[in-house]
Amino acid sequence: MVNGIERPLDVLNNSKGKEVLVQLKNNRQMVGTLLAFDIHINVVLDNAKEISDGENRRSIGLTFLRGDTIIFISPASAVEQNN
Amino acid sequence: MVNGIERPLDVLNNSKGKEVLVQLKNNRQMVGTLLAFDIHINVVLDNAKEISDGENRRSIGLTFLRGDTIIFISPASAVEQNN
Amino acid sequence: MVNGIERPLDVLNNSKGKEVLVQLKNNRQMVGTLLAFDIHINVVLDNAKEISDGENRRSIGLTFLRGDTIIFISPASAVEQNN
Amino acid sequence: MVNGIERPLDVLNNSKGKEVLVQLKNNRQMVGTLLAFDIHINVVLDNAKEISDGENRRSIGLTFLRGDTIIFISPASAVEQNN
Amino acid sequence: MVNGIERPLDVLNNSKGKEVLVQLKNNRQMVGTLLAFDIHINVVLDNAKEISDGENRRSIGLTFLRGDTIIFISPASAVEQNN
Amino acid sequence: MVNGIERPLDVLNNSKGKEVLVQLKNNRQMVGTLLAFDIHINVVLDNAKEISDGENRRSIGLTFLRGDTIIFISPASAVEQNN
Amino acid sequence: MVNGIERPLDVLNNSKGKEVLVQLKNNRQMVGTLLAFDIHINVVLDNAKEISDGENRRSIGLTFLRGDTIIFISPASAVEQNN
Repeated sequence: MVNGIERPLDVLNNSKGKEVLVQLKNNRQMVGTLLAFDIHINVVLDNAKEISDGENRRSIGLTFLRGDTIIFISPASAVEQNN
Repeated sequence: MVNGIERPLDVLNNSKGKEVLVQLKNNRQMVGTLLAFDIHINVVLDNAKEISDGENRRSIGLTFLRGDTIIFISPASAVEQNN
Repeated sequence: MVNGIERPLDVLNNSKGKEVLVQLKNNRQMVGTLLAFDIHINVVLDNAKEISDGENRRSIGLTFLRGDTIIFISPASAVEQNN
Repeated sequence: MVNGIERPLDVLNNSKGKEVLVQLKNNRQMVGTLLAFDIHINVVLDNAKEISDGENRRSIGLTFLRGDTIIFISPASAVEQNN
Repeated sequence: MVNGIERPLDVLNNSKGKEVLVQLKNNRQMVGTLLAFDIHINVVLDNAKEISDGENRRSIGLTFLRGDTIIFISPASAVEQNN
Repeated sequence: MVNGIERPLDVLNNSKGKEVLVQLKNNRQMVGTLLAFDIHINVVLDNAKEISDGENRRSIGLTFLRGDTIIFISPASAVEQNN
Repeated sequence: MVNGIERPLDVLNNSKGKEVLVQLKNNRQMVGTLLAFDIHINVVLDNAKEISDGENRRSIGLTFLRGDTIIFISPASAVEQNN
């Protein structure tokens, strides 16, 4: 169960230091460790990997993602438990 | 009947803890339990599933959705009662 | 005749509780009873139906529509009187 | 000649109660009587008709148009005098 | 030579009452006499003509153009001197 | 080497009176002398030329470019030194 | 490991004077030395090169990039370590 989610950003706060899946516009996806975010939903991922068609396409390492290209952000563990 | 809807966000408030259908731009849909939202219509869904062409495509689990990719949000019970 | 329309939102205010046609971007249309709106033109429809190519495609029931996907909103009675 | 146009909105103010042509993004056009507008260029038309390829496609009657889908607004008399 | 252009809007101010070329998004162009503009770059043209593929397509007369569809605005005399 | 660039707009300030290359969305490019800019990155070019596929397509002369269509702005001398 | 990243902009601050990869919308990429950035994520690169399909397409030299066309920014060393 999910505890303590009162505002949307609580999900991001709970995910700091954990692996997340970031779905971008134009069918890009990134997975990586969430290090930081701000109210514009700009996020920083470490050990980021770009994924396309279910396969790793490119390792990016540390990356700053602008919020306005993001569709959704999910804890990667949640995605896997449900697959 | 619908009671007590005076402002648009009242619909979202009434739907907390219930299953909603979220229609995104680019023909993506998500269904899941609405946990939280804010004035930008950023929303958090639990047990989220991506749907395409009427079939589940991917289980996402817990997810943070940015408001600017959302077209509409409906209580899933309403969608089903009318089908 | 049209009385008392001094500001654009007066049309929406006069249409509360009545059926409206909402034209969305990307050729989607919805018809439903207008329950609420705000200054961002976020609207709530009850008994909403999605229409495509002049045919009902999906019943949505109660729905929250984000303003930035809306092209126009018309009282459904006006659309019909003119057809 | 055109008198008294000092700010862009003066054109819309002078056109109240008169027929205007509204060019929308995505090649939609509407003609109708301008009843109201605001600083976001949201406008209300009465007796509105959608036009495509120079032919009436649909009568809409009274309609609220969101400003961000509008390219230009012209007094219909001006368009006709110049054709 | 160009004198007294310290801020971008000075170009528009110097062009009032003169013919300008307005390049719009989606390959539309308009030429007409610049009557007014505001800080959103909403502009009013008189005797406006829509141009496509170098030929006049439609006479519009007086028109209000929303700023967010504009790519550039040039004094028409400058365009011609350089052709 | 590059001296005294502490904020992004310093590059534009240093380029006043010099030739710049402006890359626009939709594959348009302009070269011209930078006369003025503001915080919205609206810019004024003199002796502007539109370029497509490496060839001059149209001379525009003096032009006001809206910031939101701009991808990047470079001093033209830098582009040439590196080709 | 990554130290001291508390806010997204810390990544950009740590990357000043170093080579970064900037992914733009529409499949453009730039690599160059990050000289400056602001809260709109407008950035200045020196010795910038445009890359397409993994090959250098054009040397740009010094360039001002508008933030709203940027998808992500990564330290180039991180991208390489992971390839």
